[in-house]
Amino acid sequence: MAKNFSKREDNYSQWYNELVVKADLAENSAVRGCMVIKPYGYAIWEKMQAALDKMFKDTGHQNAYFPLFIPKSFFNKEADHVEGFAKECAVVTHYRLKNDEETGNIVVDDDAKLEEELIIRPTSETIIWDTYRKWIQSYRDLPILVNQWANVVRWEMRTRMFLRTAEFLWQEGHTAHETKAEAVEETKLILDVYAKFAEEWMGVPVLKGLKTESEKFAGAIDTYCIEALMQDGKALQAGTSHFLGQNFAKAFDVTFVSKENKPEYVWATSWGVSTRLMGALIMAHSDDHGLVLPPKLAPIQVAIVPIFKNEEQLAAISEKVNKIKANLEAKGISVKFDDRDTQKPGWKFSEYEFKGVPVRLAIGSRDLENGTIEIARRDTLTKEVVEMEGVEEKIENLLEEIQENLFTKALDYRAENTYSVDSWDEFKEKIKAGGFVMAHWDGTAETEQKIKDLTKATIRTIPLDNPQEEGKCVLTGNPSKERVVFAKAY
Amino acid sequence: MAKNFSKREDNYSQWYNELVVKADLAENSAVRGCMVIKPYGYAIWEKMQAALDKMFKDTGHQNAYFPLFIPKSFFNKEADHVEGFAKECAVVTHYRLKNDEETGNIVVDDDAKLEEELIIRPTSETIIWDTYRKWIQSYRDLPILVNQWANVVRWEMRTRMFLRTAEFLWQEGHTAHETKAEAVEETKLILDVYAKFAEEWMGVPVLKGLKTESEKFAGAIDTYCIEALMQDGKALQAGTSHFLGQNFAKAFDVTFVSKENKPEYVWATSWGVSTRLMGALIMAHSDDHGLVLPPKLAPIQVAIVPIFKNEEQLAAISEKVNKIKANLEAKGISVKFDDRDTQKPGWKFSEYEFKGVPVRLAIGSRDLENGTIEIARRDTLTKEVVEMEGVEEKIENLLEEIQENLFTKALDYRAENTYSVDSWDEFKEKIKAGGFVMAHWDGTAETEQKIKDLTKATIRTIPLDNPQEEGKCVLTGNPSKERVVFAKAY
Repeated sequence: MAKNFSKREDNYSQWYNELVVKADLAENSAVRGCMVIKPYGYAIWEKMQAALDKMFKDTGHQNAYFPLFIPKSFFNKEADHVEGFAKECAVVTHYRLKNDEETGNIVVDDDAKLEEELIIRPTSETIIWDTYRKWIQSYRDLPILVNQWANVVRWEMRTRMFLRTAEFLWQEGHTAHETKAEAVEETKLILDVYAKFAEEWMGVPVLKGLKTESEKFAGAIDTYCIEALMQDGKALQAGTSHFLGQNFAKAFDVTFVSKENKPEYVWATSWGVSTRLMGALIMAHSDDHGLVLPPKLAPIQVAIVPIFKNEEQLAAISEKVNKIKANLEAKGISVKFDDRDTQKPGWKFSEYEFKGVPVRLAIGSRDLENGTIEIARRDTLTKEVVEMEGVEEKIENLLEEIQENLFTKALDYRAENTYSVDSWDEFKEKIKAGGFVMAHWDGTAETEQKIKDLTKATIRTIPLDNPQEEGKCVLTGNPSKERVVFAKAY
Repeated sequence: MAKNFSKREDNYSQWYNELVVKADLAENSAVRGCMVIKPYGYAIWEKMQAALDKMFKDTGHQNAYFPLFIPKSFFNKEADHVEGFAKECAVVTHYRLKNDEETGNIVVDDDAKLEEELIIRPTSETIIWDTYRKWIQSYRDLPILVNQWANVVRWEMRTRMFLRTAEFLWQEGHTAHETKAEAVEETKLILDVYAKFAEEWMGVPVLKGLKTESEKFAGAIDTYCIEALMQDGKALQAGTSHFLGQNFAKAFDVTFVSKENKPEYVWATSWGVSTRLMGALIMAHSDDHGLVLPPKLAPIQVAIVPIFKNEEQLAAISEKVNKIKANLEAKGISVKFDDRDTQKPGWKFSEYEFKGVPVRLAIGSRDLENGTIEIARRDTLTKEVVEMEGVEEKIENLLEEIQENLFTKALDYRAENTYSVDSWDEFKEKIKAGGFVMAHWDGTAETEQKIKDLTKATIRTIPLDNPQEEGKCVLTGNPSKERVVFAKAY
């Protein structure tokens, strides 16, 4: 399977694109910028969804569903929001097709023009806050802690599978609160949920912090984010949690009667992660042999390949394997026993290696005699032959070890590629080479833009609990009180 | 909560609409024909999804995701399909908005017109078969057993929450097979899955059968369906499974090399159920006191209401309740202990009754002394005071009993409202009164249409394993070999 597969160092971008397709994760569709998520890729996304959904529910959130369509006029109501989103929207103008009498082809029916155009949601703050107006009268109706799993559309000009697609899948949380403090707390709670998920499930270490004014969400007071570092030294924004203040409550006139019996505007948050996480997952761990998956998100955690010459041998092996499989499954481990006779063992080894299955077992007739089995690890590409007795427990521990190892490796990579930089020359050099560059910045949007124009680097985040230190802006030399994190980004 | 709530016999339709809103299941949105599914309603849908998804996976299916958009030209490729669907589509014609310089409002940017319009999927056969062309070369690539959970849009003129909305949520399975026999088998397998889900989870008995030529899916060879009877005597099509023959393979040129090394067109099925099932669930069991839910799909299976005068009493009750709650949860039962002091017990009783919570417990200080607890059943509206000791097991059994009772009640209702009819006068009378009417039909589309024009009744299904008997068409008197099922329908 790994034939004609690019190497990371030769062409990282091509390596990524080939990996996505060859590992059966996704492919481009007939619709510009829209991908098809294939069953293997979707199975990983389902595992992500299940874990996140549980974390949301454990923190008191409920799911709901709001319309795909947003009336155009809703976008006029929040000034920053329209600036940020209206530029790249799919617009529904008609509701019927008809047969063209001359050509026989189907054409848009001009008689079926909508009075007001509908926008395919790029994000749902507007339609949701229009709805919340009806749900909220008193402080007793608060908080509202709602999430939705949905598809959204942003008409991006340059698309890449998972990382930036016209349509993508995501979850968007939209919460409503009595007080500013409570809303800020919610924003941070979700940031912690995202960071925990990225680190403990995806094995991807992330920086938690704030976005600058220029980089924040259109309509937010503050945008918090988690930022990860990919193997090519580029940053990837993996999730955002927005404190929206009373902006949307004011735009959609959502007030409540407080405990003190006074009308007040509601405080809001919104937060989301998307199928972009798939891109982060793929890029964080995978290598020149294909996909590498953390066990917690692998649809197949253990693949078992029998090595046999005839039916009789297969029958004897299967008897043993079925017991091991049942024992592993009883431990909650997902196992695939690949007893197909249409493919050779070597082909199967490559397949599971390329698809990132964390542990692969092989067992042949000699193993049966010796009471042994071969275990191969995808993360280290090492193999060992072990006693069959007690192999289930060994595998259980191994899966945990692999999960941990991937995280540690990614953490080490990030540490090796994070630089504290004080001169403009060094800044340029490090940004060019890739990595997180911690540098002083004078705090102005103007300088931020200049640095971006000169180096393509953006301020990825101002870390939470950032150490305060006096310094001089790396570009202007103006005074600064803290370093911020620069990088080129996806 | 049940104030101002219509009775079924006074106005069934109004009763339904009020129930959906007052039980917090859904509400109309600002977008014509699109609903907001509220958290409580969505929690029921999630339970449906989880059960169905498991059944699909247990029968070998995998999930995937295909684009929301379908290029207009794809609809031209399958002649029947375009006739059935193109009339009611949301059409995306532009991909950008801009500020109008004169008014300051945002308007559609005429410079951002798509070369080819995109249709919001009303169903995904076309985009999926365009994709399958790339996935299928050899018989080794078959079968493909894929499902997707998605939103679809059909621009219906008359909408009703859950039953018929412009946007709705559904699953659509799309499978590809080597042989006709295998595809037909798949179609029937899924019909059985749907029937099992409707009866065992929703508690709704269904007839399984074929649709007539006039009623079948646009593009299918055969459409199988499950049909349920609602409390107002109207039928509801609850799920369909289509044998598509080679129609889509031919339209999208999807061939495979067979075991005999010959190119052949692939055989197809598609099948779906939608949020319409929520409508069926609501209408099948609910009463003039509100929603009635089968325990297997109830987000809250047991609600516990403490009756207390002060903090001290509540503390003593809570201690006991928390143990019962933990024991119930250990049995996999979902419990809500409603210890709010902002609402009185009576208010809570009404709330859980209206929201269809299957079992409600009440416990006060006297119960603590006596070692008793009150159990109220939602389905029969009966109460009894029982020993607290062993109450968990009693509740576990009770939930099963309620599940069964709802199904039996619905089955009895259907039996009482199914008629075998041989004269046109009786036919008209029974159709007017409501119910399933089994009558002979001469097999022509013309007669089918005439009957519909005269009585609004349609042929809901030709049941599987339908007894063959000689008879005369109820309208024309022409010969017939079997009875078919007529009813007015949603």
